[in-house]
Amino acid sequence: MPGTLYVIGVGPGDPELLTLKAAKVLREVTCICVPKGREEGSSLALSIVKKAVDLDGKEIIEAYFPMRKTTKQKPAHRSRSTEKEGSGSASCELDAKWNETAETVMSILAGGIDMAFITIGDPTIYSTFFYLYDRLLELNPGLAVEIIPGVSSINASAARAEISLGLADEKVAIVPATYADSLKGVLEAFDTVVLMKVHKVLDRIIQALDVARLTEKAVYISRAGMSDERIIRNIREVKESDLNYFSIVIVRK
Amino acid sequence: MPGTLYVIGVGPGDPELLTLKAAKVLREVTCICVPKGREEGSSLALSIVKKAVDLDGKEIIEAYFPMRKTTKQKPAHRSRSTEKEGSGSASCELDAKWNETAETVMSILAGGIDMAFITIGDPTIYSTFFYLYDRLLELNPGLAVEIIPGVSSINASAARAEISLGLADEKVAIVPATYADSLKGVLEAFDTVVLMKVHKVLDRIIQALDVARLTEKAVYISRAGMSDERIIRNIREVKESDLNYFSIVIVRK
Repeated sequence: MPGTLYVIGVGPGDPELLTLKAAKVLREVTCICVPKGREEGSSLALSIVKKAVDLDGKEIIEAYFPMRKTTKQKPAHRSRSTEKEGSGSASCELDAKWNETAETVMSILAGGIDMAFITIGDPTIYSTFFYLYDRLLELNPGLAVEIIPGVSSINASAARAEISLGLADEKVAIVPATYADSLKGVLEAFDTVVLMKVHKVLDRIIQALDVARLTEKAVYISRAGMSDERIIRNIREVKESDLNYFSIVIVRK
Repeated sequence: MPGTLYVIGVGPGDPELLTLKAAKVLREVTCICVPKGREEGSSLALSIVKKAVDLDGKEIIEAYFPMRKTTKQKPAHRSRSTEKEGSGSASCELDAKWNETAETVMSILAGGIDMAFITIGDPTIYSTFFYLYDRLLELNPGLAVEIIPGVSSINASAARAEISLGLADEKVAIVPATYADSLKGVLEAFDTVVLMKVHKVLDRIIQALDVARLTEKAVYISRAGMSDERIIRNIREVKESDLNYFSIVIVRK
């Protein structure tokens, strides 16, 4: 009997924001897979878990997780066909890394061992797990997987800033900061716009907000709920030292 | 010393999806305020908590919570000025109800008692708490409030259906089903569209999806993680008996 893969969202940073279920499963499993990529997130997921659950005696596997920069390759879905688009040599290299990680995971599960795969925030929103999932399903379409949702950094940031993301019939857009130069339409059409990973393009976001006359409606939040959290309600006052990989801007009209 | 108001997201339905922090605070407080409105959500928040935390000896206050149907009146914010738009007599009646609830909460806090206000899912996304918050801040701008985020039904639904809401530089829109007849633009511009509370307008949503040729990309999920959960991957097959207040459609291109 192969093991079950528990995909666990460990929340945005505060170990107390783990769910009861996440903590229970993490206590029960003997093997935990931690994504190890180029970005800061890798070690954070494990450090969150360490503060909430005793990991003594558990096997920790650091699987290499290349962070993808493109959306061209859609993940497969258990009940859908996989769509793949052309891939160059860089993409092939990434694929090889993903396949390596997938094979490591599959070999452990094949030994009948339940395994937890931990990811910051919630697994369904901007988590690299779904790239791995694609490969895992290719290797074994009948794989036993349980995705345990977590508190996302978006909800945690709004909570810390005491902002509602949406009420009644309001519309909410979640937009990566790579769209900094084409925000006009979304700022017009939505009641709340959440801009993700803004740290590298904050000036361009401020420019777009200025044009839309919404700069005063924006709040900058980084590392919500962590000891070095920043909540800055005048985003013109955000300094270089406030910028962080885990940063979002919430624009609430 | 007035008490602190803990606003607690209790997650989407599965009591194990409470956070460690939510469970801890709920064990510690002696008074829990439960919204009581016209919609199904009211009693659900309490029933979730009852399964995870022993409430014996705690005071449970059921506060009347009128569900608003309009977005015209924006909530106040601690650091922002309150904007109010014209209100008719129906609106005045709602305001009176809100003020009544706010005064009940304030009188308990004034007695130095810490209080938990529980809400399904996460407090920052489509939770009526922010209407109350508006009134509470009017009564006492220095009120001690801590918002404890929870797992939202959106993330839980995606997890149960094993769908990613967004990867890398993808854009996500969250749109209440009241916009069923004007979905064209959002379906074109976003990689994922989450339609909320679809139970009353599912035919019109299917019509809009047909026009956009996206019907096959939609999944219907209701009561994610609860015993009577429904996950229907062909939304044309959703029957009357599957429809539910806690229903969403995720359209993932």
